[in-house]
Amino acid sequence: MPARDLENGTSSRPLGVALVGFGTVGQAVARILCNGSHGRLLLTHVCNRRVERKRAGWVPAGVTWTDDIEAVLDSPADVVVELIGGHDPAASWIRRALEAGKSVVTANKQVIAEQGAELEALARRRGRRLRFEAAVAGGIPIIHGLQEGLAGDRLFRVLGILNGTCNYILTRMEADGVSFDAALREAQELGYAEADPAADVDGFDAQAKLAILSAVGLRRPIGASSIPLRTITTIDAVDFAYAKQLACTIRQVSRAEHDGDGRVLAAVQPMLVPRTSALAQVSGSRNVVVVEGAAGGETAFFGHGAGGDPTAVAVVSDLESIARGSGDPAARLAAGPAASAVQDFVSPHYARFIINDRPGIVAALAGVFSRHGVNIDAVLQQPGWPKTNLPFVMTLNACSAAAVHAALAEASAFDFHVRPPLWMPVLTPRQQT
Amino acid sequence: MPARDLENGTSSRPLGVALVGFGTVGQAVARILCNGSHGRLLLTHVCNRRVERKRAGWVPAGVTWTDDIEAVLDSPADVVVELIGGHDPAASWIRRALEAGKSVVTANKQVIAEQGAELEALARRRGRRLRFEAAVAGGIPIIHGLQEGLAGDRLFRVLGILNGTCNYILTRMEADGVSFDAALREAQELGYAEADPAADVDGFDAQAKLAILSAVGLRRPIGASSIPLRTITTIDAVDFAYAKQLACTIRQVSRAEHDGDGRVLAAVQPMLVPRTSALAQVSGSRNVVVVEGAAGGETAFFGHGAGGDPTAVAVVSDLESIARGSGDPAARLAAGPAASAVQDFVSPHYARFIINDRPGIVAALAGVFSRHGVNIDAVLQQPGWPKTNLPFVMTLNACSAAAVHAALAEASAFDFHVRPPLWMPVLTPRQQT
Repeated sequence: MPARDLENGTSSRPLGVALVGFGTVGQAVARILCNGSHGRLLLTHVCNRRVERKRAGWVPAGVTWTDDIEAVLDSPADVVVELIGGHDPAASWIRRALEAGKSVVTANKQVIAEQGAELEALARRRGRRLRFEAAVAGGIPIIHGLQEGLAGDRLFRVLGILNGTCNYILTRMEADGVSFDAALREAQELGYAEADPAADVDGFDAQAKLAILSAVGLRRPIGASSIPLRTITTIDAVDFAYAKQLACTIRQVSRAEHDGDGRVLAAVQPMLVPRTSALAQVSGSRNVVVVEGAAGGETAFFGHGAGGDPTAVAVVSDLESIARGSGDPAARLAAGPAASAVQDFVSPHYARFIINDRPGIVAALAGVFSRHGVNIDAVLQQPGWPKTNLPFVMTLNACSAAAVHAALAEASAFDFHVRPPLWMPVLTPRQQT
Repeated sequence: MPARDLENGTSSRPLGVALVGFGTVGQAVARILCNGSHGRLLLTHVCNRRVERKRAGWVPAGVTWTDDIEAVLDSPADVVVELIGGHDPAASWIRRALEAGKSVVTANKQVIAEQGAELEALARRRGRRLRFEAAVAGGIPIIHGLQEGLAGDRLFRVLGILNGTCNYILTRMEADGVSFDAALREAQELGYAEADPAADVDGFDAQAKLAILSAVGLRRPIGASSIPLRTITTIDAVDFAYAKQLACTIRQVSRAEHDGDGRVLAAVQPMLVPRTSALAQVSGSRNVVVVEGAAGGETAFFGHGAGGDPTAVAVVSDLESIARGSGDPAARLAAGPAASAVQDFVSPHYARFIINDRPGIVAALAGVFSRHGVNIDAVLQQPGWPKTNLPFVMTLNACSAAAVHAALAEASAFDFHVRPPLWMPVLTPRQQT
């Protein structure tokens, strides 16, 4: 049986769907495909390592269970849904599926961030589709939104909360004043965070997602690994107290924008965001993506960024898109050599110091900032701390992140620090939603 | 020249676009089409009454200016963009364009709410497309979101702020305590509100939009005119003071949901919404649409609900969708006999009275509520008002809107009212976002 011609989508035969990866998301996809509400989609294969332990009674008898990817690639299935994640063997399986004349739906942010444009071109040459709504922000239909719903605009900015684990940790710290470590342990106990949380808290997960949003929304390919990252692990409960004093809270913010000179500014980092901003309203493991366009202004998408069911909605929406014979999206993944992102945003900044107090510290820091052309806006010091472990905050007038970074690198050499200084940009009203 | 085959979308010839209606939105669409960023779209015609006064030097010389719809219908243009609004002659022109083998993009909420399914079926029979992203919530890509991005889910609820004029008026009252009349005048001076504001403030505009969202998102056709409306003109500055005391604000909320028994509950009315809810965050003329699905949970879309440029983005996105040969959307407008919406939501309520005070009033009102099975939660009375013109509020425990309506209809007969009582449902956490 030949894979049907997806160009016209007029076949009345249902689309045969092979699931590769039968974990939380794969099972949620299978449940939706088997609940009778998507008559154009027919589950044909479930492929997983040691698949026997995965067999589920609610899956119809006609479905083939296999642990052999070759059986899927050789099958008449029209679409391969890749849900195993990671670089290998996922990337080669996606490539081989496309070469075998199948369309591919994937939730794999790494593979799309790194090889998406090339794989999309391969799909196009074969007259097939590569779709990846589930790779960014789970159930939020942001890829469809960028590729189709906002295709009429020229977007110059994308900003969001793309990692639900970080957002869970930060909103827990915000709500109850718990420490980072306590919030992380809680997230791990609830299954939101991995035993090794680095991909989330250090920003690698959001980095790949932001690279995809830049390629689709800004039409600029940027090398994911070139996007500067700053960890949230250095955020302390005291930072939330000072943020509150500044009418802000703290979020891990991913942002990318044209700078007007053909460069893409991008970063994934903790930021102070006004409590009235859309980003501050996103609590728990939810995500938000805000885009800004030349004509349409600001548009924001909120929803569940992770979890089996929301992510499965994204996968099934992609399958429906293929089943109805949707053509190439208006906005493809930008191809061409990936530019390096630069972190050169200009904004006010927050700098927090924990010191062993003695006279002259503010003067010493002020001297360093002055040499780097950075103006101090205010010095905040909440009472009640011992002099030997004293937190205080300097807010800095709008300046480049590079200047703050350089100033604090120099200031780190002072011997009065109990902990290394921490700095964060402040999202300004121009930037907030 | 035959209209090209849109089924496969593989033509390299650009899509010829005829604009019918050259007001604010039409001009914004033309500017985007002429700015060089949409090479697949070619403006061929501008049709408007007395078109000569509309001629603009920035429109390329090859474009045909006409005031004759027949010239457009007889032309080789591939797509007619209908931007004249209203029922007639818009509906018949859309129909005739489809019958002439053209696709149609429209911003016309009335025509889509009333005849959308029928016109979509006509388009399908002709192998053409009918798209209407601009008909609901301007630049927010909610129609694409429902038809494609969330096609994998089963949505049971849609809730939103769909009228920017009402939202502007209510957020002005909220921010500065101005009266309804003053806020309305301000909106009129800014061009947000018409000289006759009834379509906005009485809910007719949002009614048509909600009917479209129900047909696309809930897959239930409801007769637009069957959706119960309640005006915002009765909202007083004092209501914002009491709302604030209840940690709420007031918004015109449009909502529709399955009730589980095959009925659609729907209404457009002012509601108390918690200040922490997504709806309360929407200020000025912006819109929001919140949908809730069985698998994906809550997803929200924020953006500019009106204005030439944002609405033009929606139109151009639809044109791009047609140009790329997108097939029928996964979620079409629900067809079949339109059901009548029922307003039978159960929620807590707010009831405000302005009275000429005398003993026994609370007892009298309590007696009426009791006879209708409605429990009073609290009585609020802010100080500083004269006894002859005294506002006070009763909050009511969760009960049906019908019970509150009936109780207040009865209570209106008392002679102590200085103004008719006002009631509003309160959006509860289960319902808020």
